[in-house]
Amino acid sequence: MAGNTTGKMFAVTTFGSSHGRALGAVVDGCPAGLELSEEDIQLELNRRKPGTSAITTARGEGDQVEILSGIFEGKTDGTPIAAVVYNKDANSSAYENLKNKPRPGHGDYCWISRYGHYDYRGGGRGSGRNTIGHVIGGAVAKKLLETLNIKVVAHVTQIGNIKANTVNLNLIEDYVQQNVVRCADQKAATEMEELILEAKSEGNSVGGIVETLILGAPAGLGEPVFGKLDADLTQTLMAIGSVKGVEVGFGFDVVKYTAQEINDEYYMEGEKIKTTTNTSGGILGGMSNGMPIMLRMAVKPTPSISSPQKTVDLEKMEETEIEIIGRHDPCICPRVVPVAESAVAMVMADHLIRSGFINPRHL
Amino acid sequence: MAGNTTGKMFAVTTFGSSHGRALGAVVDGCPAGLELSEEDIQLELNRRKPGTSAITTARGEGDQVEILSGIFEGKTDGTPIAAVVYNKDANSSAYENLKNKPRPGHGDYCWISRYGHYDYRGGGRGSGRNTIGHVIGGAVAKKLLETLNIKVVAHVTQIGNIKANTVNLNLIEDYVQQNVVRCADQKAATEMEELILEAKSEGNSVGGIVETLILGAPAGLGEPVFGKLDADLTQTLMAIGSVKGVEVGFGFDVVKYTAQEINDEYYMEGEKIKTTTNTSGGILGGMSNGMPIMLRMAVKPTPSISSPQKTVDLEKMEETEIEIIGRHDPCICPRVVPVAESAVAMVMADHLIRSGFINPRHL
Amino acid sequence: MAGNTTGKMFAVTTFGSSHGRALGAVVDGCPAGLELSEEDIQLELNRRKPGTSAITTARGEGDQVEILSGIFEGKTDGTPIAAVVYNKDANSSAYENLKNKPRPGHGDYCWISRYGHYDYRGGGRGSGRNTIGHVIGGAVAKKLLETLNIKVVAHVTQIGNIKANTVNLNLIEDYVQQNVVRCADQKAATEMEELILEAKSEGNSVGGIVETLILGAPAGLGEPVFGKLDADLTQTLMAIGSVKGVEVGFGFDVVKYTAQEINDEYYMEGEKIKTTTNTSGGILGGMSNGMPIMLRMAVKPTPSISSPQKTVDLEKMEETEIEIIGRHDPCICPRVVPVAESAVAMVMADHLIRSGFINPRHL
Amino acid sequence: MAGNTTGKMFAVTTFGSSHGRALGAVVDGCPAGLELSEEDIQLELNRRKPGTSAITTARGEGDQVEILSGIFEGKTDGTPIAAVVYNKDANSSAYENLKNKPRPGHGDYCWISRYGHYDYRGGGRGSGRNTIGHVIGGAVAKKLLETLNIKVVAHVTQIGNIKANTVNLNLIEDYVQQNVVRCADQKAATEMEELILEAKSEGNSVGGIVETLILGAPAGLGEPVFGKLDADLTQTLMAIGSVKGVEVGFGFDVVKYTAQEINDEYYMEGEKIKTTTNTSGGILGGMSNGMPIMLRMAVKPTPSISSPQKTVDLEKMEETEIEIIGRHDPCICPRVVPVAESAVAMVMADHLIRSGFINPRHL
Repeated sequence: MAGNTTGKMFAVTTFGSSHGRALGAVVDGCPAGLELSEEDIQLELNRRKPGTSAITTARGEGDQVEILSGIFEGKTDGTPIAAVVYNKDANSSAYENLKNKPRPGHGDYCWISRYGHYDYRGGGRGSGRNTIGHVIGGAVAKKLLETLNIKVVAHVTQIGNIKANTVNLNLIEDYVQQNVVRCADQKAATEMEELILEAKSEGNSVGGIVETLILGAPAGLGEPVFGKLDADLTQTLMAIGSVKGVEVGFGFDVVKYTAQEINDEYYMEGEKIKTTTNTSGGILGGMSNGMPIMLRMAVKPTPSISSPQKTVDLEKMEETEIEIIGRHDPCICPRVVPVAESAVAMVMADHLIRSGFINPRHL
Repeated sequence: MAGNTTGKMFAVTTFGSSHGRALGAVVDGCPAGLELSEEDIQLELNRRKPGTSAITTARGEGDQVEILSGIFEGKTDGTPIAAVVYNKDANSSAYENLKNKPRPGHGDYCWISRYGHYDYRGGGRGSGRNTIGHVIGGAVAKKLLETLNIKVVAHVTQIGNIKANTVNLNLIEDYVQQNVVRCADQKAATEMEELILEAKSEGNSVGGIVETLILGAPAGLGEPVFGKLDADLTQTLMAIGSVKGVEVGFGFDVVKYTAQEINDEYYMEGEKIKTTTNTSGGILGGMSNGMPIMLRMAVKPTPSISSPQKTVDLEKMEETEIEIIGRHDPCICPRVVPVAESAVAMVMADHLIRSGFINPRHL
Repeated sequence: MAGNTTGKMFAVTTFGSSHGRALGAVVDGCPAGLELSEEDIQLELNRRKPGTSAITTARGEGDQVEILSGIFEGKTDGTPIAAVVYNKDANSSAYENLKNKPRPGHGDYCWISRYGHYDYRGGGRGSGRNTIGHVIGGAVAKKLLETLNIKVVAHVTQIGNIKANTVNLNLIEDYVQQNVVRCADQKAATEMEELILEAKSEGNSVGGIVETLILGAPAGLGEPVFGKLDADLTQTLMAIGSVKGVEVGFGFDVVKYTAQEINDEYYMEGEKIKTTTNTSGGILGGMSNGMPIMLRMAVKPTPSISSPQKTVDLEKMEETEIEIIGRHDPCICPRVVPVAESAVAMVMADHLIRSGFINPRHL
Repeated sequence: MAGNTTGKMFAVTTFGSSHGRALGAVVDGCPAGLELSEEDIQLELNRRKPGTSAITTARGEGDQVEILSGIFEGKTDGTPIAAVVYNKDANSSAYENLKNKPRPGHGDYCWISRYGHYDYRGGGRGSGRNTIGHVIGGAVAKKLLETLNIKVVAHVTQIGNIKANTVNLNLIEDYVQQNVVRCADQKAATEMEELILEAKSEGNSVGGIVETLILGAPAGLGEPVFGKLDADLTQTLMAIGSVKGVEVGFGFDVVKYTAQEINDEYYMEGEKIKTTTNTSGGILGGMSNGMPIMLRMAVKPTPSISSPQKTVDLEKMEETEIEIIGRHDPCICPRVVPVAESAVAMVMADHLIRSGFINPRHL
């Protein structure tokens, strides 16, 4: 299958670029009978859209969504849900000086290698704006997960060297809304915001860590050997721009422990089987075990920075220097939060249908 | 697609379990005209097979491969290559006491949740023996990559808290063969071996980090937005048992730096465009940029340990304790090395065909 | 994969229904560098659109296409091409009386069985209007085929009992444009038109046979065993509404002959290998042999007729009668012609990329 | 996906060729808990195997199946079911004279065009022996269908110009077993047998029509727009060697009628909704309507005949003549019967799981 579709039974195809006419998604395989409105999608898009605080890009996009198909009398009708967002504030002039000069840390040079050309206007399809498609698909997926009381919640746990303290899993969703960084630890959030603004003032940028939680998933989701749930969740997170690492549960920290220390032992909580610890992050053998699923990803500093950088002029085939003007995020982590949730929600919706937890025909 | 196939154009389907009759793989989509013998596959299987040193399980399996189809006059004929390995030393008796008692850290409980039962004999399909299928597919993929001078090399870089020193990328393949740990730093390897034997003597196990390198890949491999090369490579590594985290290039360390510090700048080396640093690990925007591709994964301590562990008796629905007898690896990292190479080689073969670098019909 | 995508490498996802807001398609996997304009797509849509003659439905739709993405400086940029057509003349009131009363010969009852409801307004997604998506995808595919001088040409060969005489394959494309029936035999076309108008005046409808030719395809296209070219072409034609049979070459007539009579023998025409006859219709063993590919399909009489029909009231669960008002085609064959070409062109584009005849990255 | 896999959720990958070591299949996606034995598969293979009567090839193959994986304690365990049949009576010497000389009516020339070579020994993978894989997959699928009381029954309805009389649908399965032609009309069967033997004695062959019925399928199976049930069933039948046409219900005969004559009207039979006629063959709008599904396919005369035929020597690039010795079927229709059933059963199993009629995890 071509590269712009994710999922097998709940399949989302996205399209569009930063400076083209529009972006959008087609959600195929959503069962009929799910209540869905433009407002449901708009709310998620608003969480992703730029220009909402001093720590995001100043590009002013309303990102108004229009649903083109798939809804009948307020509910999904089982046919593809197409939704579109038109670009309004695309300003290509700022990019003219980048023509033929691939930006360090961006995919420009790879695009040329692959496609024989690239859209120098803000990264084209490689721009973070392509995640509008994720969010459309994710909004539908979240509504579907809601019918099973499954929640997907992401939050920022680290920016640069500032780490957030751990917070009760069930409080994160609320706490995250209380600051622009989307960090559940308010004190850390304040420091993070300062660090981001400092980087911005220096024409620089910083990275961080975003954690995504899945609460309420049933045990038995995931398909060994090559369709494991953790593998598919990792895939979708790694496919988000700027992500360089993904881990589940204790992740890379497993190296610090022995099996005696981190094997999650089973016990009975009333009639339910649970594990005393959750170092595995809710997934064992590639399948969910009913405990909270915990994923963390490393997000690199936004490569678009205004300070001068060395590159190559591909036309003249000689070394040169560029300064990126444009309007950029000094730290993309806060805006990655709704995108990570969307990506994860789509994979979950797909696996829930594939595994028979959701009727593929209708609710 | 069901869960036991990986790849779209170079598609490998694997089958078999630890205590069933046989394991194997069907490789579909390999172009005709590739020289391939049973010996090619056997060599890779020998690197994976158990019982080769004191730090691996004592299960004595010859793991002899038989090619059933797809080869004509010493070359692939373009039709599916099926290959099979019969189980010889399966000893199910050791597992009788584990019936209905899911092992901590293993997928047993998840299998029951999903399939309504599970093969208590050594994990069944969930056993590490399922990676025989990976290695068969990987051996074919490696032969295909060789035709483009692309190499996939994995090695152990950390066991417990012992970290290996960095070694020149081109020497790793040789150095790795000089010790049973498969670590390119001989001094560290000795310490690692001791640590593993110590864990073994205590009925315990340790984890580590395995790095996989792809050398010689062309720029322009990978399909935005959902079929990115790093995302697919990460997926396949995360689908290997016991892996809890995967990172590319600087991985989680990107958080420690600003964009000014880690944006890989471009320069000319003769006629070739290269980057001065390779913090991105050879992949930007989901596509290769022609630099070495570097992946690292965290492998947890083998969950099968002989010391007593708490679990639940699923028949009586009450808490209980188990001791796992069997024959297990006190550290799986050395044996993960050929599996990681295989998994990565299959994804690369698939992307090379999908992207038109290899003629899908014949060489 | 969900059901609204066709193709693996050249993958087209369509959406929209007869009385919803819009219809459209996303074409993923088209190589970069193909010249493509809205005009290219519009020309094909104009061939499909209703209201162009007395023998088609009177619904007045301009079917103006808008390309939303995937084009940069007049050429495909390798990213998904999304295109949309808004519904303008949807008139749902005519269908109110059909609520809960499935129309004979239509899929209404099946939709209810599957989705728990159905869009009674003109068939919703089941309407022939969904083929707008086909034509968008087909227009792109045709442009791609043109780069290899491959042509797809469809024409009507029979309406009711009126059969057209055979015409030289290379003249069909021109001849077909000379009458509204899209039959290459002008004399037969006139009779066919009369037959259709007669059926219309009686509140009835007629069916026919549409032949699709592929000229200029290379030998060696198609993937045994389950991805055969004839199988995939047949699949796509059978997926067009109202089609009840598909045949290749001599088709069902092979039964009348022995192998001695119809085995196509090989001979040399200069340096080229050809067959003396083409009873196989250009495909043997599921792969093209370089001869013209010939497909024929049976199209049933349009089930929407104005005379009274018996059905069941699904709410009251009792038998009842309906009269379909609406605006319908008394014979859908002429309008199937561009749809068949589109469907076939998409499959060909997919196979050409999958088989390495077209570079998947860029032209 | 590469070409040797059929199905998405119930995915069967087949391998092997006529003169290689073995043939077989891997069935992935069969839910756990289905009773399955080697005997179940062997019974179906026995129906397909050669040498059982004077009207089939004399090749003497026991076609003994061995299940390698996927069964635990007599039931499917949810993991891939691999099964293999070793070739025993392969006799390649008869084919030496065909080297570089493509047989008329066979895919040899297409294989060379695609793969740069071909297995001249009996067609290799292109041989009818590849349908052993179909039958293995079909045997599993049939067992799965049985759990829903769905039956797939195929029978010969025409050989050459001899047509069978219509028989009650429910009697066909029994009647078919009473003669070697597998025709439900005993009188016609006798004539058909004579015709086949006559062709054989003349070094010639004849074709025919095979009908496949699906009895007991629920309404609502199939996925518009591109995954329609009739389209997928047609695809799988057309992918069987020698098939040149497929039709559903009235098929090509729809052309002879008007909508008033063949629209299947609905009525109530007790609580059930049925159609008074079944010209649509149980499928409307690409979805089943609960009536018997009826498919017919045209099978061409076996192209392997012993009389001399003209072809081209591909090495010398000059015209030549060949005589095919080997051991061939003078009419393949009787042996296509179990293959057609298998192909159809696999598609049905896949759609039943995809549509939620069968739990994908376990029964």
